[in-house]
Amino acid sequence: MGIITLLTDFGLTDEYVGVMKGVILGINPKAKIVDLTHHIPAQSIRAASFLLKTSYAYFAPGTIHVAVVDPGVGSDRQILAVKADGHYFLAPDNGLLRPILDEAAEVKAVVVSNPKICLAQISRTFHGRDIFAPAAAHLSLGTPLEDMGSSISLEAMQQEEAAREEQMPEQLLGQIVWVDHFGNLVTTISKDGLDMFAQGRPWEDMVVQVQGGDGLKILDTYSEVGRGELLALIGSRGFLEISVNMGNAQEALYAGPGARVTVSFSK
Amino acid sequence: MGIITLLTDFGLTDEYVGVMKGVILGINPKAKIVDLTHHIPAQSIRAASFLLKTSYAYFAPGTIHVAVVDPGVGSDRQILAVKADGHYFLAPDNGLLRPILDEAAEVKAVVVSNPKICLAQISRTFHGRDIFAPAAAHLSLGTPLEDMGSSISLEAMQQEEAAREEQMPEQLLGQIVWVDHFGNLVTTISKDGLDMFAQGRPWEDMVVQVQGGDGLKILDTYSEVGRGELLALIGSRGFLEISVNMGNAQEALYAGPGARVTVSFSK
Amino acid sequence: MGIITLLTDFGLTDEYVGVMKGVILGINPKAKIVDLTHHIPAQSIRAASFLLKTSYAYFAPGTIHVAVVDPGVGSDRQILAVKADGHYFLAPDNGLLRPILDEAAEVKAVVVSNPKICLAQISRTFHGRDIFAPAAAHLSLGTPLEDMGSSISLEAMQQEEAAREEQMPEQLLGQIVWVDHFGNLVTTISKDGLDMFAQGRPWEDMVVQVQGGDGLKILDTYSEVGRGELLALIGSRGFLEISVNMGNAQEALYAGPGARVTVSFSK
Repeated sequence: MGIITLLTDFGLTDEYVGVMKGVILGINPKAKIVDLTHHIPAQSIRAASFLLKTSYAYFAPGTIHVAVVDPGVGSDRQILAVKADGHYFLAPDNGLLRPILDEAAEVKAVVVSNPKICLAQISRTFHGRDIFAPAAAHLSLGTPLEDMGSSISLEAMQQEEAAREEQMPEQLLGQIVWVDHFGNLVTTISKDGLDMFAQGRPWEDMVVQVQGGDGLKILDTYSEVGRGELLALIGSRGFLEISVNMGNAQEALYAGPGARVTVSFSK
Repeated sequence: MGIITLLTDFGLTDEYVGVMKGVILGINPKAKIVDLTHHIPAQSIRAASFLLKTSYAYFAPGTIHVAVVDPGVGSDRQILAVKADGHYFLAPDNGLLRPILDEAAEVKAVVVSNPKICLAQISRTFHGRDIFAPAAAHLSLGTPLEDMGSSISLEAMQQEEAAREEQMPEQLLGQIVWVDHFGNLVTTISKDGLDMFAQGRPWEDMVVQVQGGDGLKILDTYSEVGRGELLALIGSRGFLEISVNMGNAQEALYAGPGARVTVSFSK
Repeated sequence: MGIITLLTDFGLTDEYVGVMKGVILGINPKAKIVDLTHHIPAQSIRAASFLLKTSYAYFAPGTIHVAVVDPGVGSDRQILAVKADGHYFLAPDNGLLRPILDEAAEVKAVVVSNPKICLAQISRTFHGRDIFAPAAAHLSLGTPLEDMGSSISLEAMQQEEAAREEQMPEQLLGQIVWVDHFGNLVTTISKDGLDMFAQGRPWEDMVVQVQGGDGLKILDTYSEVGRGELLALIGSRGFLEISVNMGNAQEALYAGPGARVTVSFSK
């Protein structure tokens, strides 16, 4: 298909993203490039990992997803090229891809090392331009993974830094991992996690607390509460979110990434 | 042509817009997608309506314009698919399209209801991804409006919430509807409205006031006043704007959307 | 190839950039449009000039680069269409292109004047839409420069406003010209300029000062200093940058565009 998505912490103020596109189109003028987001908080591997995991499947199989959140650029960290469940991924080996790969049925991964798929000059600070962009373009032209470098096993890759939600008998523990444009607080607690925790008990009895604050019900849609009131719901990514109907939950709760979220059952 | 424009209040921090593009390209890999803007103030139907009305005609006929400013998502509000003056529009039935449709020579509209042109799973919070994007992609592949849902008349649609400019014998009344990146204050008063109000009297005698402040002349170009000075002029959208030469009118006047603007004739 | 890049100070809040793309695709539906950046500080010709000069060569020859940072719009300033070293450029004649043209081996330039390559109606305030966009689209369809207007020599063009770095026996003088998304301070001092200044003396002995502050070494990569520490290095654009490892140099030094940077040798 030749679709390439870009996810970075570069922002859009600089020419960085545009230059990456120039390099890609210079190699494959027919590539279709889609910006997933360039507003990952600087060097936040966890946020990048979460957004990529919850969005890549909305693209067609064969799409190449390039994720450059790369605090280790210029050090000896490696770059991974991966095929998983029919999608391709290029990312630093810093844990960013682990949540995707841990859940994928079939994974094939190599460490990018072939200089022929990189720019002739490789800077110490901008591998997005010098390695990720040309490697993605070559992938989109059909270069097989085997020609990009030698294979690496899941076990040999870096672990993700992310804390995982814990299962406790009486409480499900998670944290806020993303705050969206509208101030919705997105948590690490998935719909599936809630189902497992519930073990058949009714969802109506679940109570959600952010940083130990007031208990919120899990509802279906914003309009079930009054304008300006807080609620919890399963957001469009399939994860529990805290929202305010026609308002901003981040401002209402003064909470952001890392804040503790718990779910329990009211007696 | 396969050109699809996107206008939303989603911002670019999240992956929302990128995911909509993934869904579109998964259905029509040849679609050309153009971001009109994603920085409509959250849930401001009036701002969205104004920008769409003043920009869509710069695209080729046949273009599909998708506008998702949708405070009612998840409620029972309907989604419109419209052909008007050779362009296609997809938007919630919340008044957003009314100013365009009221002026269009020929309008054909349906309420989107065919599940075959939506994603299989429809969330309660992200119809941009689940309905608007796939419906736009199917439109771009040639699906006729009739196959998308049953027809709806202009009278049966929601009215726009926007106040209209009033015609008074001695004063033309409007308001600020948009503040651009440079701090120019764009008003609801059109060039045509000024012509009707003038009734042949000379434009040089017109005086523009924001919130009853100092009277400004309507000039042709910024450089007719000194650096840092205020002026009024007909902006590139065909509407009266208040500007500062090489400066920022929003800061100079401390005025924004909703502020009252009047035009009168000096004696 | 049909690739067109856009560099403006329009921001992304307005529909301006989207409308330019609509005009381009209306004339050449096959054009590939890449945003270089739209976040040039308002009317900063020097910042636009620097970013365009350091990025255009990452695109394929034949690419058309449209740069609209245009404080003189509506005045009698001219618009240039240029071919230089195999790339095309469209920009106001305000010095923006001079650093590129001064270093190009082969330059062919015209003043855009043919109304057939512009929109039928030309506003006084938005030449990006009315002249630059359609002219770029016609160029991408193969319209020769000669058909766009009459030729102009390098000498007849406006000079750039930018101060150039001075060569002094004991000190190399420059300034900060750009602050990137991560707070890195990019200077006007190039790697080549440093080589000429060094005259064989070792780079390890060079000391960089911003506004006369503490002397910094020029290192190869961020991780050579501790987290939160300042360093100087040759950035990915080939120019000296001041950075903080895992931090923000703009905040650490409280310095921005225009601040004086000096390089000298420690005894």
